[in-house]
Amino acid sequence: MKSDIEICRDTELTPIDSIALQAGLLSEDLTPQGTLKAKVKPSVLKRLADKEEGKLVVVTAITPTPLGEGKTVTTIGLAQGLAKREQKVMACIRQPSMGPVFGVKGGAAGGGFSQVAPMEKLNLHLTGDIHAVTAAHNLAAAAIDARLYHEERHGYEAFAEKTGMAALRIDINRIVWKRVMDHNDRALRMITVGKNQPGKTINGLEREDGFDISAASELMAILALSKDLADMRQRIGRVVLAYNIDGNPVTAEDLQVAGAMAVTMCEAIEPTLMQTLEGVPTLIHAGPFANIAHGNSSVIADRIALKLSDFTITEGGFGSDMGFEKACNIKAQQAGRGADCAVVVATLRGLKANSGLYDLRPGQALPEAIFAPDDKALVAGFENLKWHINNAAKYGVPVVVAINRFPQDSDAELAALKTMIEQAHFSTHVDVAISEAFGKGGEGATELADAVINACQQPANFKPLYSLEQTLEEKLMTVAEVGYGGRGVELSDLAKQQLAELKAQGHDNLAICMAKTPLSITHDPSLKGAPTDFVVPVRELKLCAGAGFVYALCGNVMTMPGLPEKPAYLALDIDEDGNITGLS
Amino acid sequence: MKSDIEICRDTELTPIDSIALQAGLLSEDLTPQGTLKAKVKPSVLKRLADKEEGKLVVVTAITPTPLGEGKTVTTIGLAQGLAKREQKVMACIRQPSMGPVFGVKGGAAGGGFSQVAPMEKLNLHLTGDIHAVTAAHNLAAAAIDARLYHEERHGYEAFAEKTGMAALRIDINRIVWKRVMDHNDRALRMITVGKNQPGKTINGLEREDGFDISAASELMAILALSKDLADMRQRIGRVVLAYNIDGNPVTAEDLQVAGAMAVTMCEAIEPTLMQTLEGVPTLIHAGPFANIAHGNSSVIADRIALKLSDFTITEGGFGSDMGFEKACNIKAQQAGRGADCAVVVATLRGLKANSGLYDLRPGQALPEAIFAPDDKALVAGFENLKWHINNAAKYGVPVVVAINRFPQDSDAELAALKTMIEQAHFSTHVDVAISEAFGKGGEGATELADAVINACQQPANFKPLYSLEQTLEEKLMTVAEVGYGGRGVELSDLAKQQLAELKAQGHDNLAICMAKTPLSITHDPSLKGAPTDFVVPVRELKLCAGAGFVYALCGNVMTMPGLPEKPAYLALDIDEDGNITGLS
Repeated sequence: MKSDIEICRDTELTPIDSIALQAGLLSEDLTPQGTLKAKVKPSVLKRLADKEEGKLVVVTAITPTPLGEGKTVTTIGLAQGLAKREQKVMACIRQPSMGPVFGVKGGAAGGGFSQVAPMEKLNLHLTGDIHAVTAAHNLAAAAIDARLYHEERHGYEAFAEKTGMAALRIDINRIVWKRVMDHNDRALRMITVGKNQPGKTINGLEREDGFDISAASELMAILALSKDLADMRQRIGRVVLAYNIDGNPVTAEDLQVAGAMAVTMCEAIEPTLMQTLEGVPTLIHAGPFANIAHGNSSVIADRIALKLSDFTITEGGFGSDMGFEKACNIKAQQAGRGADCAVVVATLRGLKANSGLYDLRPGQALPEAIFAPDDKALVAGFENLKWHINNAAKYGVPVVVAINRFPQDSDAELAALKTMIEQAHFSTHVDVAISEAFGKGGEGATELADAVINACQQPANFKPLYSLEQTLEEKLMTVAEVGYGGRGVELSDLAKQQLAELKAQGHDNLAICMAKTPLSITHDPSLKGAPTDFVVPVRELKLCAGAGFVYALCGNVMTMPGLPEKPAYLALDIDEDGNITGLS
Repeated sequence: MKSDIEICRDTELTPIDSIALQAGLLSEDLTPQGTLKAKVKPSVLKRLADKEEGKLVVVTAITPTPLGEGKTVTTIGLAQGLAKREQKVMACIRQPSMGPVFGVKGGAAGGGFSQVAPMEKLNLHLTGDIHAVTAAHNLAAAAIDARLYHEERHGYEAFAEKTGMAALRIDINRIVWKRVMDHNDRALRMITVGKNQPGKTINGLEREDGFDISAASELMAILALSKDLADMRQRIGRVVLAYNIDGNPVTAEDLQVAGAMAVTMCEAIEPTLMQTLEGVPTLIHAGPFANIAHGNSSVIADRIALKLSDFTITEGGFGSDMGFEKACNIKAQQAGRGADCAVVVATLRGLKANSGLYDLRPGQALPEAIFAPDDKALVAGFENLKWHINNAAKYGVPVVVAINRFPQDSDAELAALKTMIEQAHFSTHVDVAISEAFGKGGEGATELADAVINACQQPANFKPLYSLEQTLEEKLMTVAEVGYGGRGVELSDLAKQQLAELKAQGHDNLAICMAKTPLSITHDPSLKGAPTDFVVPVRELKLCAGAGFVYALCGNVMTMPGLPEKPAYLALDIDEDGNITGLS
């Protein structure tokens, strides 16, 4: 079989203005970026205000292996399958981060015959949204350190006199805004900034700092959750960058940098229209990393797609405890629109990985044995699938299990899995379909499409797990107990102190955004399957007042990945005609 | 008078495909980015191979004040003036850096009625080239630290066995590739990376590092100097990132990251076509900062413009000792094409600033008094203009002095300056014209256009100051003595050692790229006018094997600027309809 990029290059694509027209977008709604990408103006929502919305299908998955179980393949394949069934459909996915593209996982355009095209444009830069988020974020970081330096250098009073601006009196030990970069760069996790040659202080004030990956920026969450430009501008103003020496928050508005940050992101708020290999219109918006970020595609993109199509297929990263939980509890509550159906992607290899019978390590290839039939591992791993089906059911939506077939999978083992699902008892409507979207495109996903059409006709009663009126503790407990099936949370001393402060500052009504490993439904990546006897350790809480949530760091989760021994970038190259090789 | 962004917004622009067509570009040469920007494929040069080239006019200036003397205004105004004179003309300028846009100087689109439009697109992101350079640069940085970490963690032999790749054995004390960011962020000048919690080493190995501003990246110079994609790919492979424990260079090719870096920059190699407020086609390519970088627009952009027009107007940053020196000694030698005419921009305020009679400080507004007539200061400062005219003359080109008129300037003082120039004796043809390009657009620059047309008819005999066959010492001495008029260079012990190593490694044939203050023709920003009795202290040499030069850091020059007390970002904001305010 040809490589992903070869398949993509050999497919004849439709000019994006035709794709747009077909989708119901007018030329005044678009800013084309070349012939195969176009920015879509959010103002289109005014024109479409009176249109009825279609069905919202959120694709989630079992607890994945580090290579992923094909959620984007299934998302794109399903959209193509629905198009084969003559349905009006759009897909909404997130812009890939260059971290995974050059790191372990590779690109995030789908794969095989279910890709967003051109995949090399999607995987690299696209229309610059992540760069814009990075630039806006780091402008605020530079602004804090500069203000700290100048106020210290002159003294507060002299600074105020010289500039006509009140001193902000930032507490150097309480700067909570790190810097960001869209690369897997572990050496930047913990750094010291503002170092000077002995006797000089021209490089600012020395302090401990660090970089997160750009997708984990609060600004990325703001981009995803804003309903329009004015909303984004206001949210950016509310972002807390630091605390002053009296313990009061210093916001981006206080620093007078919020306007410039919003200006930097003013094109990023427009989703990018592309197409699948079979010409299904696809909107790309906001960033990935549903483990350490909100990590869902944007409210604006979903809303546009819902207005333009009968089925909007979107995805939440990793298992249903990760992106799907945030799609339901954070995004749906802010957007006022929940899912009509959940698709849970499962693979034979992924279930066997969840049996705990294989020695899997992040950054390493999966053992060959996992692709051979293994009844014992499948039965053990099936517990994980059951868990995710029941988990999706808690949100009141019908479920479709999409078994994503890999070339090595045997018919017998696939049939066995299907039977196991059909014979199990679940608390919601559950359909099951085998998807061959990777190898066969939309034709390989018509069974899945039919199942989704059927599921969307079932009564749906979407509800988030918590309401915003509950206290922060109640929400944390709800996610840990109901969302993960554990025995609650244990707050570190730091987190306890932060919780008390957040409550005192009136932030009890915010949502909770959990940051934890995606490789287990718990906080511990080594606990596979469907464990129940665990308590989630919350080591730190961070206020994200602009995004509208409190960010809870659980276990040892890290917010900046690292490159493995043999990173994906080794294979990449380009010839003199601009043909890229090695991207997958 | 209206603000720059108001003027820009109130001007009706022509669709970019019409501008392109008018310039002689076909639709197959273009990738439009919206209706007012288009990427131009370098392959157009094959189609135009047999076309004769027009005249190349390089705009330079006197030693500027920190606010600049209007070089881009004059470049754009001159192009518009030539168009008014029915000449076929294109301008080639560099993409603005967000550092100055948010910092001291503001945007770099020109100003008044001589701007590239839309100025907010030019000043922010444009088509993402600087972001691409930043991403490619930082990928290499992450790759070095990751490789260092994995080789150390496993041990060289075990690493080689595990990965099938030879250990690179990078010397942690000799990593010469810093990270970059396109912001003025002084706190990142000197940092410690790879810090760990006690007893852990999961964040890499601790070492001293720092960030430069992105425009100073060797990759930006490579972008500017490459003749095509294949050349860029090869140059990136030659970039030296570190030395191994035997003292041998470790290149981007050795690290197998050069392909991925080139992939990251494969769209950046295409210049962006825009237009001036009067519809003159303008190519934007490569980055600014001719003080700490090569800092000229690209060879590819110039070449395309030369093929398409009778006059190509480009600019080199700061005074003729800075960007113009590098345009002639680095860029012209690599491109095999020198200038036909130099335009030296002078202002009354800039000359008075060069008198040494005013107390000027970077980051602070100029004193009001400098705008009032001041004969003594003008006469004293005139020495600086004479110096720059004679300096340009050394390169064998005719000179046009463009006196860029500010609204406060008196007719009498302008006339006096003009007379001083006309009565002085120079070793090349010198014309002089007053430009009112800022206030009147092309109509205000027709006198200048006529002077340039006249100068381009003079016999030109372009020659760089040195040939690449000379030794590195000879080139350093030549720039300091002939290019700056000083008494040579003094190398630090470190620089001496580096020079010996560069020679031993066979790099004697590279060009020299000087990094020094732009606020004096010397290395000392306090020395105004036309000093002669100085020796240039070279504190450090860096090999830029991909760019084809040795980078010489002189005096206290810093390669990462800082934000001032009242940065330009304070004024920026955006309304709900996307209208930007406060950008200039």
